[in-house]
Amino acid sequence: MAATSDATAARMAAEARERKRVFAQCERFLVGHGPLRPHAALAELAREVGTAEESDHYGEGELIEDFEREVAELLGKESALFLPSGTMAQQIALRIWSERKRCATVAFHPTCHLELHEQRGYARLHGLHARLVGEAHRLLTLADLEGVAEPVAALLLELPQREIGGQLPTWDALVAQTAWGRERGAAVHMDGARLWEAAPFYGRSYAEIAALFESVYVSFYKGVGALAGAALAGPAEYIAEARVWQRRHGGNLIRLFPYVVSARVRLRERLPRFSAYHQGAMRIAAVLSAIPGIALTPDPPHAHMMHVTLRGDTERLLAASLQIAREERVALFSALAPTDVPGIAKFELWVGDAASALTDEEISAYFTRILAAGE
Amino acid sequence: MAATSDATAARMAAEARERKRVFAQCERFLVGHGPLRPHAALAELAREVGTAEESDHYGEGELIEDFEREVAELLGKESALFLPSGTMAQQIALRIWSERKRCATVAFHPTCHLELHEQRGYARLHGLHARLVGEAHRLLTLADLEGVAEPVAALLLELPQREIGGQLPTWDALVAQTAWGRERGAAVHMDGARLWEAAPFYGRSYAEIAALFESVYVSFYKGVGALAGAALAGPAEYIAEARVWQRRHGGNLIRLFPYVVSARVRLRERLPRFSAYHQGAMRIAAVLSAIPGIALTPDPPHAHMMHVTLRGDTERLLAASLQIAREERVALFSALAPTDVPGIAKFELWVGDAASALTDEEISAYFTRILAAGE
Repeated sequence: MAATSDATAARMAAEARERKRVFAQCERFLVGHGPLRPHAALAELAREVGTAEESDHYGEGELIEDFEREVAELLGKESALFLPSGTMAQQIALRIWSERKRCATVAFHPTCHLELHEQRGYARLHGLHARLVGEAHRLLTLADLEGVAEPVAALLLELPQREIGGQLPTWDALVAQTAWGRERGAAVHMDGARLWEAAPFYGRSYAEIAALFESVYVSFYKGVGALAGAALAGPAEYIAEARVWQRRHGGNLIRLFPYVVSARVRLRERLPRFSAYHQGAMRIAAVLSAIPGIALTPDPPHAHMMHVTLRGDTERLLAASLQIAREERVALFSALAPTDVPGIAKFELWVGDAASALTDEEISAYFTRILAAGE
Repeated sequence: MAATSDATAARMAAEARERKRVFAQCERFLVGHGPLRPHAALAELAREVGTAEESDHYGEGELIEDFEREVAELLGKESALFLPSGTMAQQIALRIWSERKRCATVAFHPTCHLELHEQRGYARLHGLHARLVGEAHRLLTLADLEGVAEPVAALLLELPQREIGGQLPTWDALVAQTAWGRERGAAVHMDGARLWEAAPFYGRSYAEIAALFESVYVSFYKGVGALAGAALAGPAEYIAEARVWQRRHGGNLIRLFPYVVSARVRLRERLPRFSAYHQGAMRIAAVLSAIPGIALTPDPPHAHMMHVTLRGDTERLLAASLQIAREERVALFSALAPTDVPGIAKFELWVGDAASALTDEEISAYFTRILAAGE
């Protein structure tokens, strides 16, 4: 048995590498903005940075400070801090609230990035305890919060919730949940990794949404598509303290300009497009949900993304997607994750610049072909 | 009094800004490799990266893994991990040793980077206690270590010791100190931020020096002059654990290639030059120490650097340096730090590519002029 499993695992790993190789050579992509390659990315940054611009130096200098001001204004906050990663930004955000509230417990959804993807840094580095609120498969509710029977230093709300297909609470629910936090004496922090993509759903400005929160984290590499980088925004004295923690985390780099310039270029370029990405997600969702064997979460999408579940044999579905990538140089999905339901697997689809290269008819035809192969 | 002090502080800050501005426009530089500007740096990286190279992805991919192997081989260690900063690398290094040794105390010199420049991240993030060993103004000795009466998880030794002008212990002293650590059951960790610059002093390979240590941190932006970045090297399973902590710290960025490519280019280019930088430091030290009113620490230099102490009025010394920068576009020193001795201030001089543009006669004449102005 063990030998067979090992052999299967090795074969599947080899197939995954092969899919990755073939997908990297595709010309059109359903998901995201298409591939980012070092040579082209660096050449573009060199063109975009002014020849007279000076490097930042341990977080100081016009290049980084001007961009921090731009982000703070966009979010309607006093101040913002550029950091290498969201992992760093959010642990710092919660640690500061924890010390100010003299309480080590923070509340978030079971699928929170801090719980799933950061190796529990919040506990191992910061000594924080997580009070998980709500259920993994659905949005957090006010009733979930009202069930919290202990003090919490901070309530973290993710907008939109990535692990459930980018779902967003209604505006009224969001107002009620953030009010619950404040009434309980907790700071309300936004995990806005994909906040840029949430504005079309609410039909409100970023600043209006952010006004419900004491502190806000945003990412520059997810929908924005910059090389990397994040920002934490909030009251000026809070951000001043965050700078101290950034130094402690090892994130106060001597030079961050490659990331700052990339974030500046991409944010200015793509901010006006997020509404179109949302429309694109709605359009693609309509095409996909009409195909028997496909279901979406959520349907219709709230933001620029959705989970696409496919009925059929996972290996045959993947093989069909690989064949399309090889023959037509069209990349649809290169991996499938299991769901709770046997015989149904899923992938995450987020809409960026790339999807406009595919017509509705093509998407429909490709997925009809894939579903047939999976039967 | 308060009003006068505030006015003085404001004037001094304005003067510091003005010096910075004038120095940025200089054409020749005594210290370092000369200025690094975003446009030129990014354009160079674009030229240096292969058009077929793929981006790293959360620490994976040939681009980053090949460079990690290159660094591990150079240091004679099984494995190496690329990290955004040395602050992150060293806290992680000590945390792992602390957990393995089941002991929260780590030993280092009072001028250790962790003690002076990281906002005590080792304590606030990792719960580590520092046992400071030795005295701030001189090298650590075996006798200092023998005075440690408590268990320590790790002994950190910095090669060379930056805050005392880049001094290095003799080879025999280094062997004895690292042996002390091992005999006490402590892991011996090297802060090799400037290790590249230490090899000429010992006349040994990097791997021979690193062999005295269980784990080694090296920097790519100090003497090497890359944009930023660091590596931690050691046993394979130790580095595997460090990758987990890198994720916790928020240092496992989706893309690190701008720093990796920069480190790769600069390390290959400058490694063969460190011997020449050491020779340059010896030459400049001989020139400077012949000028009345100048003394050096150490004299002669052990590595590529030294502290230069100048006798005279600090403001007049700075004004004279500024005048040379303005009139001749030669940057010597743009700031002076106080010493324990009234009327004597100092600056850090490290020798890189830039110094070769200045002749001994020019250096002698400029400093003679500056010392006269400071009298």
